[in-house]
Amino acid sequence: MTGSEDTPALRELAAHYQSMPPVVAIQARIAGYDGERLHLQAPLAANVNDKGCAFGGSLSSLMTLAGWGLVTLRLQEAGLEAPVYVADSNVRFRVPLFADLHAEAWLQEGDWDSACADLRSRGRASLMIASRVGPGDGSASAVGSARYVAMLG
Amino acid sequence: MTGSEDTPALRELAAHYQSMPPVVAIQARIAGYDGERLHLQAPLAANVNDKGCAFGGSLSSLMTLAGWGLVTLRLQEAGLEAPVYVADSNVRFRVPLFADLHAEAWLQEGDWDSACADLRSRGRASLMIASRVGPGDGSASAVGSARYVAMLG
Repeated sequence: MTGSEDTPALRELAAHYQSMPPVVAIQARIAGYDGERLHLQAPLAANVNDKGCAFGGSLSSLMTLAGWGLVTLRLQEAGLEAPVYVADSNVRFRVPLFADLHAEAWLQEGDWDSACADLRSRGRASLMIASRVGPGDGSASAVGSARYVAMLG
Repeated sequence: MTGSEDTPALRELAAHYQSMPPVVAIQARIAGYDGERLHLQAPLAANVNDKGCAFGGSLSSLMTLAGWGLVTLRLQEAGLEAPVYVADSNVRFRVPLFADLHAEAWLQEGDWDSACADLRSRGRASLMIASRVGPGDGSASAVGSARYVAMLG
């Protein structure tokens, strides 16, 4: 994470991740955030399977964490403190990944303002988040699509 | 795993799992196998999220491992040694899981004999595997459906 991205919100998200043993285990860390996309990274060594490439479950987990983090950050920026849950998740595994894991997540459909309005007026918002994970060269070893739900108190 | 289920094939599968750092991290272990369903377990403590319940990524991972293990075992029983890959995965998260994770996987469609015949004749087989994970009382906190592909050298 570069210095310019080291905001209080990102530090809080990083602390959230670090409070979760399975996230510590895969050594996931925040690698960047530009307001639209959240990037996470994890080393291959902590996520390798019996074939020497990344375990599919780790690819899914890193994409899930990126999507969850993105939704959490955007709601916080809108002044909304609501727990966020993953409701469903689809992942397509394209090619084995023999390198460190680079994941990113972004809003797949709809817009943040409408979601925030839903959360304020109805106490609930649903967001479709796209994600991908690969070696960091722009190619995707796996692509994901997941729905996250935020609910006020 | 009870003594009656402690076969050489299950010991080999357990060793496979133990060779994967992310699987060791979530403390997944084989809990039973009757030829049709493979059961895995993992402790909540190693898989807990910031809300005190099981991390969605861990639920997905345990179901993926159960499916992968089931396909690997059934192919081995048919005398086929082929690497098995997860091709795509869909998971629906129903309710938070505040207990140790119990996952099971079974064949969702088709039959094993046809898949083995495909693998022998065409060098490739595709299998749809259903899975679920919950507290071990028969209820499901998450349900999954995933396609696994096996390919001969």
